[in-house]
Amino acid sequence: MYSFISSRNIRFILHEVLNAGDLNRFPFFRDYDKDAMDMAIEAAIQITSSNIYPFNKAFDQFKVTHVNGVTHVHPQLKHLIKSIAEGGWICSGASFENGGGQMPEVLSSAGRLIFYAGSCNSAYPFLTSGSANLILNFGSDELKSAFVPRMIAGEWQGTMALTEPQAGSSLSDLSTSATRTEKQGTFHISGQKIYISGGDHNCADNIIHLTLARIKGAPSGTKGISLFVVPKYKLDGSFNDVKTAGIYGKMGQKNYTAAHLMFGESGICEGYLVGEENQGLTYMFQMMNEARIGTGLLAAGNISAAYYASLKYAFERPQGRHPSNKDITTPQVLIIEHADVKRMLLLQKSILEGSIALLLQASYWADIAAHGEGFEKENAHLLLELLTPVCKCYPSEMGIISVKNAMQVLGGAGYCNDFPIEQYFREIPINSIYEGTTTIHGIDLLGRKILMKQGAALSALYVEIGKDLDAALKIEGISLYSKKLTVAVQKLQQITKHLTDLAINERPEVYLADATIYLEGFSQIVIGWIWLKQAIIAQEKITLVDAVSEQQFYSGKIQTMKYYFEYELPKYVPAFERLLSNSKITLETNPLDLL
Amino acid sequence: MYSFISSRNIRFILHEVLNAGDLNRFPFFRDYDKDAMDMAIEAAIQITSSNIYPFNKAFDQFKVTHVNGVTHVHPQLKHLIKSIAEGGWICSGASFENGGGQMPEVLSSAGRLIFYAGSCNSAYPFLTSGSANLILNFGSDELKSAFVPRMIAGEWQGTMALTEPQAGSSLSDLSTSATRTEKQGTFHISGQKIYISGGDHNCADNIIHLTLARIKGAPSGTKGISLFVVPKYKLDGSFNDVKTAGIYGKMGQKNYTAAHLMFGESGICEGYLVGEENQGLTYMFQMMNEARIGTGLLAAGNISAAYYASLKYAFERPQGRHPSNKDITTPQVLIIEHADVKRMLLLQKSILEGSIALLLQASYWADIAAHGEGFEKENAHLLLELLTPVCKCYPSEMGIISVKNAMQVLGGAGYCNDFPIEQYFREIPINSIYEGTTTIHGIDLLGRKILMKQGAALSALYVEIGKDLDAALKIEGISLYSKKLTVAVQKLQQITKHLTDLAINERPEVYLADATIYLEGFSQIVIGWIWLKQAIIAQEKITLVDAVSEQQFYSGKIQTMKYYFEYELPKYVPAFERLLSNSKITLETNPLDLL
Repeated sequence: MYSFISSRNIRFILHEVLNAGDLNRFPFFRDYDKDAMDMAIEAAIQITSSNIYPFNKAFDQFKVTHVNGVTHVHPQLKHLIKSIAEGGWICSGASFENGGGQMPEVLSSAGRLIFYAGSCNSAYPFLTSGSANLILNFGSDELKSAFVPRMIAGEWQGTMALTEPQAGSSLSDLSTSATRTEKQGTFHISGQKIYISGGDHNCADNIIHLTLARIKGAPSGTKGISLFVVPKYKLDGSFNDVKTAGIYGKMGQKNYTAAHLMFGESGICEGYLVGEENQGLTYMFQMMNEARIGTGLLAAGNISAAYYASLKYAFERPQGRHPSNKDITTPQVLIIEHADVKRMLLLQKSILEGSIALLLQASYWADIAAHGEGFEKENAHLLLELLTPVCKCYPSEMGIISVKNAMQVLGGAGYCNDFPIEQYFREIPINSIYEGTTTIHGIDLLGRKILMKQGAALSALYVEIGKDLDAALKIEGISLYSKKLTVAVQKLQQITKHLTDLAINERPEVYLADATIYLEGFSQIVIGWIWLKQAIIAQEKITLVDAVSEQQFYSGKIQTMKYYFEYELPKYVPAFERLLSNSKITLETNPLDLL
Repeated sequence: MYSFISSRNIRFILHEVLNAGDLNRFPFFRDYDKDAMDMAIEAAIQITSSNIYPFNKAFDQFKVTHVNGVTHVHPQLKHLIKSIAEGGWICSGASFENGGGQMPEVLSSAGRLIFYAGSCNSAYPFLTSGSANLILNFGSDELKSAFVPRMIAGEWQGTMALTEPQAGSSLSDLSTSATRTEKQGTFHISGQKIYISGGDHNCADNIIHLTLARIKGAPSGTKGISLFVVPKYKLDGSFNDVKTAGIYGKMGQKNYTAAHLMFGESGICEGYLVGEENQGLTYMFQMMNEARIGTGLLAAGNISAAYYASLKYAFERPQGRHPSNKDITTPQVLIIEHADVKRMLLLQKSILEGSIALLLQASYWADIAAHGEGFEKENAHLLLELLTPVCKCYPSEMGIISVKNAMQVLGGAGYCNDFPIEQYFREIPINSIYEGTTTIHGIDLLGRKILMKQGAALSALYVEIGKDLDAALKIEGISLYSKKLTVAVQKLQQITKHLTDLAINERPEVYLADATIYLEGFSQIVIGWIWLKQAIIAQEKITLVDAVSEQQFYSGKIQTMKYYFEYELPKYVPAFERLLSNSKITLETNPLDLL
């Protein structure tokens, strides 16, 4: 156990659950067998232990400021970015010829998780990775060679510049404009963007904004949006009139810039078209799964660090006695002996390891979807599409509950800044807003993913779950949980049928009114499956290993699965009860009723 | 609607639900009829609107510091305390001869709620109130006249000094010592206290610590604890060697001192015995219900301010269109039009007004328990004892969910300090730790309150609920919810029987293992009852009123009740399912399984 992550758990999921080393059957991944993966994991932990985790509190205490045109961040950020870049983690999945490492996404995600557990500031280089990947996937050779190498080197920061003041989540209302110039592919950009993560800072030599804008004369709505590379400094070094109007003060992630940017406000701001005109949103959405899984990883990293901090405290803090011991002359026991403290720790562990297993599973599917063929590829693609909302929202939403329980384990100390939990509690909630709010992902799941290809994605999921239900049914000590999950999955089928009937017979307003609740119940069942999957393996292996620490690892898996099935899984029941009800409370409530 | 509280809602609960004006049938409360209560409420809102709420952000930005022996707080605190003191709110329930106002507790609680909605810093004068009440109830006339008048005037700050580093929640392990002196009733105090709210600040001329300590030679455990008045400055003005070792840095409530205190570390620290020796904990616990309801009020105030801030935003912010409107040339709608935004607002309103109604109901019982006679008195006492853990924990725990939803309504803006929500989110979580963690209250409910007098308190509650179930059954539009709650109450009876059987047949460890879960499920049902009670009245009155605003008020009550029954109440189901299970997960989990 490290103080922020369990590498044993990551290896369990990579090798024992996913058999991810087998990905090197694809020529693209030829460098990554099991051992290479383990080395990469250890390297990520090494970087985090040296350059990231020890600075996490200092990062929190260094609030980003914008003074005299310069956006100041903690100077250690430079070393953080550099060490992640030098480790080959920026665009790690890109081809060798593009400067990448042809690393499987599943391993890259495991690395990100480790870095994020060390600090949310590790998101800076992965913003760069996402933006550089956009250029690599859709940009011209000229753009690639001009921008990507410096980004992969960690010298230039990349961003995604989507949100605008008047549009927020409503991307069809974007109004930043792009005016054609005489030079093919070069436009003048004008407009404002808000909440731009990594949007400006003084630990990078340049900031490269992957910017959505509307070319003059383009169609309205989402079909008229194009994607541009808009650097803060042009390639000749001159200022490109991307001005920082201000830095948002945030509850947490204090050293992680959220900038308000103005493009071309007082001069000429050049933007270079990526790919085709009016295809901006399509390109952006092709990278969305990665970005959304990234948010899930950021949340999971946060949960991880808070869990291990509270676990450490519970192992060190004596207080109280067992309820049946009335002899106050006996010493106090460690609080980890108390049932309710163990409950709060199991709750965290179930959310943490459930999230990690799901996120790595999804990343593994991303690898298969990208490099597999035929059924295998299509199946992985469907599962990835379907479960991306869960990957984004389950760690983000349940993370708040998880870190809240970490705080509660410490009692008053958890609320004080002598201990790290309060920082994590301030950092976690933004994940349910990044990359689309939970509401939006509920609508994505129910309004898009469930319906796509006549429900093919959900069918694919049922097949996957069915395999594990069958396997678990044959294993003593686990079969009971197979039965519980079978019931839950049947309920899910029933509810989904009920809702998709509504989709046919009612307005979309009615069908989608409780999409968030559907996402909640759906997620609880998916995580139940993910836990059953882990328990099957743990139950098989626990009798085969000799080392006490290994037995304890597997025993921990089994206990946590049981905790999940006893305490968490049944929460789908009231969610589904609500979804079956004909009462349209939210639609019928007059806004004035809320005064 | 004010920006932080609804006075209409408070009047609804005081007059229409509780008929609290009727308390003036007791001679002690003769000054408080309905009109006098309304005037007091308006006065509290006036004070809050002028002297408290406008400074709430400034309070948050002014972190308490301890420099050169002085603990600095925001200077406005002096005016806050003074205006609450001058309004007669400190010891408002004490007798005229003791300097109080003979105000019913239910009204005093309504006032606190308003002040707390304005700022958590309003807790300072009510700390003083609680400490002064201890002296008034248990101290000698000499102590009363020496300390209480200046406390009631808001010139001296009172505290409760319980917690010690090595003991935390385990009060039997307190070790602060009191050594007899030659002067009867005067002791020398020596020891350390931590997390002392209001423990030191420069907006009071003296700090009066109601301190638990063990007289040399006293029995060990809780039976050897005595209560002392320990002032920072003695009555002759000389320093009494109560030193501030440090101020805790906290996530929120930044201007609300939590002090680490050292008593008699480098000199003589005098303490004056309150009441009898070794009765300290008994005295403290007689004031505990008030203190715990106070924590519930603090949480509810926080929820209220966050709710109205998010409601305001939802009424002002246009974004997106209805799902069936694909015409992007139409203007965007206000976000309050979106079903999921209304859901997040209804969720908050259900928690907020459910909490307030319960807290004022409990305070009303406190009045009856103090001034009634015979069955009425005993019944109110039982109900108050039983529901105090719910009063403390429901607003504290659900408050986190509520404020989280307020944040989500604002999206990214909710996370930024240009808006007030992030402050509330940082402030709310401490309430689940103040005055005993949720774990402790779960054990109080299941281990003590349910069992006391052969279950008499629970029987009394069933009788109360039964009356409203019967009434609701006869009202069209409400009867359905009566039936739903009837089922829930039957389940509660069944579960409680199951658990109390365990209490007989098993170790206390087994009986109490899931006390927190019991408290959760129990609370959901209690709040369901509280909502049904409100809806009965609203449904009756809605047809009788002409004013649109009044119709809307009642309609809001009915819609929110429906929301609660559809979305929140059913959550007792998985909680109770867990409690029926024989699986002893938490007890059986080896701490090493958690690594």
